[in-house]
Amino acid sequence: MRLLTVARDLRRRKARDREGLFVVEGVRGIEELLRSPLDVIGVLAAPKLVDSPRGSALLETMRSQGRPIAEVDEKEFRSAAETESPQGVLAIARVPARSLDSLAATTPLRLLVLDQVQDPGNVGTLLRTAAALGAHATVALPGTVDVWNAKVVRSAMGAHFHHPALHTTWDDLHAFLARSGVPMWVADARGEPIPSPAPPSLALAVGNEGSGVSPAVRAAAARTVGVPVAAGTESLNVAVAAGILLHALRP
Amino acid sequence: MRLLTVARDLRRRKARDREGLFVVEGVRGIEELLRSPLDVIGVLAAPKLVDSPRGSALLETMRSQGRPIAEVDEKEFRSAAETESPQGVLAIARVPARSLDSLAATTPLRLLVLDQVQDPGNVGTLLRTAAALGAHATVALPGTVDVWNAKVVRSAMGAHFHHPALHTTWDDLHAFLARSGVPMWVADARGEPIPSPAPPSLALAVGNEGSGVSPAVRAAAARTVGVPVAAGTESLNVAVAAGILLHALRP
Repeated sequence: MRLLTVARDLRRRKARDREGLFVVEGVRGIEELLRSPLDVIGVLAAPKLVDSPRGSALLETMRSQGRPIAEVDEKEFRSAAETESPQGVLAIARVPARSLDSLAATTPLRLLVLDQVQDPGNVGTLLRTAAALGAHATVALPGTVDVWNAKVVRSAMGAHFHHPALHTTWDDLHAFLARSGVPMWVADARGEPIPSPAPPSLALAVGNEGSGVSPAVRAAAARTVGVPVAAGTESLNVAVAAGILLHALRP
Repeated sequence: MRLLTVARDLRRRKARDREGLFVVEGVRGIEELLRSPLDVIGVLAAPKLVDSPRGSALLETMRSQGRPIAEVDEKEFRSAAETESPQGVLAIARVPARSLDSLAATTPLRLLVLDQVQDPGNVGTLLRTAAALGAHATVALPGTVDVWNAKVVRSAMGAHFHHPALHTTWDDLHAFLARSGVPMWVADARGEPIPSPAPPSLALAVGNEGSGVSPAVRAAAARTVGVPVAAGTESLNVAVAAGILLHALRP
């Protein structure tokens, strides 16, 4: 199938799930992707890519590496791109095979769990934060935006290429945590202050900005912890709260 | 002048500076605004506002309070709105008079300083974070996006209405900090680990995500502090890094 058709198709989550492929947009993201171990299927390039020296250099690199490149016009490119100001380049790569079981041998284990977090920018920043603060994986539960959505990938600034990001059901995660003896804590603005020291292995769950985590996740939490906020102010952004907690709870 | 004309005009920073007015978009933001001490000049409402029960209730409240309301059609509304999916309501309010001098009596004093932070979403989240974590004000230096930009206001989730956000020159801030005996620390991914305890009064400066703070700010910093990140990962998002530092350095 033509790369343009594939890229357009991958705007839908169903197509990403079926094909096991995802899209990376923008020069910087693709530079990171090419340095990662991920399998790159091909690239779409629009004329404007060569307007910037960095874009030209990227195209040159990809050609010299023999990557499959489809050169398309601006209109075709826009029909496949998700971002508002595309830089004229997107790459199609294979979603790495990662599962909870591949984490079973990691001890101590630090996980970030996303429950019904819907905003792509927040989910991308959460992945970037989890990777930077040394979590071993981020696990997305149902109701969370697809972690392979192009906007999530863009906000995560390359975190996906090294940091395991995966979707599971709550039943599978719950069974895995029980089997591995990893306690789960839930982040909530009204939670107790952060205890010190934290247990060596820990799953930290964050929920939807409006409604928090789902009842099943809340019921299974060993603790509910939160960052106290000043009187009369809004709660913290979910990625900022997760960053403060992951940092404060680091082993 | 008609409210529609004023709202359109306020999309430009020059007009906001000249008029001393800014725009709040969306139902939730305006609910917060109406509960704040800020002076509301008027409201634009499009037909779709009453599509939601919460929107209808807001319109009813504003009518019963005798707020000046201009009812405009969808096309006119879109010509004034900055956000992509406007909810059919925007309010025009007066920028509160706030200056560095009004902070002189606050002791100990905690400030967040933004130096050349350009992304409106990040600046909004920084303001929300500073307010929630008890900073007394956020000071934006030249090169930072206007804190009264509608996208910044939207991302800050009401922080502007209670938390002083102001623009100053570096010379004015520098003189104020010297006069008040407040040390300034700079956040940088390669900074030293966070010391404990922090001084009671402190200004924490964060810079552009790409290039950091400007040379003058760096030269004036008493310390450069950072959050260590895992090998091979990107730095933290600027708002996440500021959140971790403000939390770790709280008095």
